[in-house]
Amino acid sequence: MIETINQSQETEFMEAFREFVKGPYGHMPTIGKLSNFLADQTTLRKMVEFLSLNPQGKQAFLDRPSLEKVDLQQLHQLPKHTLGHVYADHMLRNKLTPLSAEDMKTSSFNSFDSAMFLSSHVIESHDIWHIVIGCDIDEPGEVQVEAFASAQLHHDRMYLAMLAKNLLRTAMYEIELHEQIMDALTKGWTMGKRAKLLFGVKWNSLWETSLEEVRASFNILV
Amino acid sequence: MIETINQSQETEFMEAFREFVKGPYGHMPTIGKLSNFLADQTTLRKMVEFLSLNPQGKQAFLDRPSLEKVDLQQLHQLPKHTLGHVYADHMLRNKLTPLSAEDMKTSSFNSFDSAMFLSSHVIESHDIWHIVIGCDIDEPGEVQVEAFASAQLHHDRMYLAMLAKNLLRTAMYEIELHEQIMDALTKGWTMGKRAKLLFGVKWNSLWETSLEEVRASFNILV
Repeated sequence: MIETINQSQETEFMEAFREFVKGPYGHMPTIGKLSNFLADQTTLRKMVEFLSLNPQGKQAFLDRPSLEKVDLQQLHQLPKHTLGHVYADHMLRNKLTPLSAEDMKTSSFNSFDSAMFLSSHVIESHDIWHIVIGCDIDEPGEVQVEAFASAQLHHDRMYLAMLAKNLLRTAMYEIELHEQIMDALTKGWTMGKRAKLLFGVKWNSLWETSLEEVRASFNILV
Repeated sequence: MIETINQSQETEFMEAFREFVKGPYGHMPTIGKLSNFLADQTTLRKMVEFLSLNPQGKQAFLDRPSLEKVDLQQLHQLPKHTLGHVYADHMLRNKLTPLSAEDMKTSSFNSFDSAMFLSSHVIESHDIWHIVIGCDIDEPGEVQVEAFASAQLHHDRMYLAMLAKNLLRTAMYEIELHEQIMDALTKGWTMGKRAKLLFGVKWNSLWETSLEEVRASFNILV
């Protein structure tokens, strides 16, 4: 058993988890706090090792692709069936700004280079994963993306804690969402296991590709 | 949104949940403590309503079948392929004693009759569900039964909280079990949705039936 949370950290962790359960969905500072415990060096190293077994993952740790500055207005001009348009439309419609690793204060960014890339790539790709997987930003949609990510990012402890949080929230406050949440979790996990790896993709080289084609290339059936 | 846990209860609940995360699997007193919050009157009433939509469920609330005293040694004498033998063998091999509602101190037993029957029937059937669903008593096995139960006992908040606890435990202490746990959760949920209702079955009328036949009659493919 890997025990990376020791007894003295446990109290602190459960306090952060409690904030997490009560706080708004996807609240970055709280996620950052938990990741101080769960995205530790050992875990990140294991994740890097696992993802490097895949040629695309291995290449990504060498190239470290980044979205750089995303111009949503410009992407929105692309034809309607493209990944870029659908992504930009989703972001603008939901008043979202592209995430960057800086939104999340975490000790893991004092980490080794590959781990730093892993964290920032996962964060900045999150909204694109929503589009590719075909998930809304409501609670079941977030759960589906989290379960998908959990299946693909082996050894990741953060997404599993987010799923735990969402099941507990549902039990405590929103039992009427129970079936939707569990269906979404099951679907995300199953899709994530069947799909090709989304980690390490140079998303900005795919803006002009049709979303349908992108999904097919990753073996994703929405 | 049904908010049955109010702000002043939240602290107490999270304290109980924390004990639950740290405690041994299936520890009855902790489960009882959490059920004081999650198996409240409103929830139990909704569960009874939902289960009564099914003719077998409806009948069960009238007949209130009970296992009574289970003689494991006697059941163990039945032919090897029977439900009774497999169940008794499982209990004896794992040094388990049949559960009864009295093992779990909870306020819900001061509750209305149907709710009282619901709780005690679910508790005393738990080990039999393990056999019928084909789950071991290791962590993935428990998770599969919990997800199955969550699918069948609509509106239940306890099993969902147990799943949340198990995902969080895995994230905190046992990330190496991650894939097994999530596979078990997905399998249990899917099986539970597809299977006929296990709630309300008079299990002691089926001891002599072959396990294979029992499973087939509930549309359970192990």
